[in-house]
Amino acid sequence: MAYRIITISRQFGSGGRSIGHKLAERLGFAYYDKELVKQVATVTGFAPEYIEEKGEYAPNRSKLSYLFTTVGTAGVMNGMSAADYLYTMQRKVILDLAEKGDCVIVGRCADYILRDREDTFNAFIHAPTAYRAERIVRLYGESEQSPEKRLSDKDGKRRVNYEHFTGRKWGAAENYDICLNTAAIGEDNCVELLYRIVKGE
Amino acid sequence: MAYRIITISRQFGSGGRSIGHKLAERLGFAYYDKELVKQVATVTGFAPEYIEEKGEYAPNRSKLSYLFTTVGTAGVMNGMSAADYLYTMQRKVILDLAEKGDCVIVGRCADYILRDREDTFNAFIHAPTAYRAERIVRLYGESEQSPEKRLSDKDGKRRVNYEHFTGRKWGAAENYDICLNTAAIGEDNCVELLYRIVKGE
Repeated sequence: MAYRIITISRQFGSGGRSIGHKLAERLGFAYYDKELVKQVATVTGFAPEYIEEKGEYAPNRSKLSYLFTTVGTAGVMNGMSAADYLYTMQRKVILDLAEKGDCVIVGRCADYILRDREDTFNAFIHAPTAYRAERIVRLYGESEQSPEKRLSDKDGKRRVNYEHFTGRKWGAAENYDICLNTAAIGEDNCVELLYRIVKGE
Repeated sequence: MAYRIITISRQFGSGGRSIGHKLAERLGFAYYDKELVKQVATVTGFAPEYIEEKGEYAPNRSKLSYLFTTVGTAGVMNGMSAADYLYTMQRKVILDLAEKGDCVIVGRCADYILRDREDTFNAFIHAPTAYRAERIVRLYGESEQSPEKRLSDKDGKRRVNYEHFTGRKWGAAENYDICLNTAAIGEDNCVELLYRIVKGE
């Protein structure tokens, strides 16, 4: 089976983004992460920082009711909440990018958005909390919050966002073609393994 | 990392058992499935058919209350329900088999039972309903029930059994080191991929 589009969903700190990037390089595929943010910025007029913050993450749970109320009743948002409008435009950009050709797309419900394409292969990357905690401190440094709190906050927001827009359980094996624990397999082995699946080797 | 024990959890009809069997052959590892049933029969005195039926499957949901009541108050079961007693003995057999050496173990909460062993690699095998429905009719023939009903009944019982004894969500990616969709990857490719991980190739 020939896969032309690889989507990477991931727990925060698991190494999923890095795996997606290396995989795209190894395959010679386009890699969409920040690039996707730029394109969404162009079509929506939202600032890239806003898209990066809101495009994958629900706000704090206490503010959820705010997220899903209507913040604009006129103009391009046409009565949609800002979150729903952003999702709609992100969806459109992802569908267009998939049409353009071979690529790796990280996050942003791309697995769900492209579910009807037979040439799409969906991966979910995860790792135990201790592994991810050590990794985010090494990569991003310490912060006021404990690494465990940073992980659960970020993943909690990704989960709420994913489940709201897809109606699916985030991280349930059956939503993905492969799920990999980077701590058990190793980041480079994950890249190699995905490479072989895509190439049919 | 050297893995000596591979556990295979699987959705009914996904090809997980067949993958486990082929993997064991390819690795030259012992394969425990029916063999495990025999050993549990020896230590418990239960009939192999009873163990096969009850060792992985909760009874019909309507009979759950029966399952978890005490059916024996004297003798070896020592006040445990038959289901709890069977789990306890199955657990003991699995821990002993893991001590004995390189092996592949299919089902029976082995991933959870062996969670403290660093030499254990846990796989979950799944596939979309349509793929599994076609496969069980091809392998096991038609029955009065629709294949979809047979799948959901069997998996429902596995789920209840797993969640009761482990307190974990069955099929949640984070419980396993790898999850594979056989329809997207192919059974033989799954065997190859697991082989390479275990061999560190």
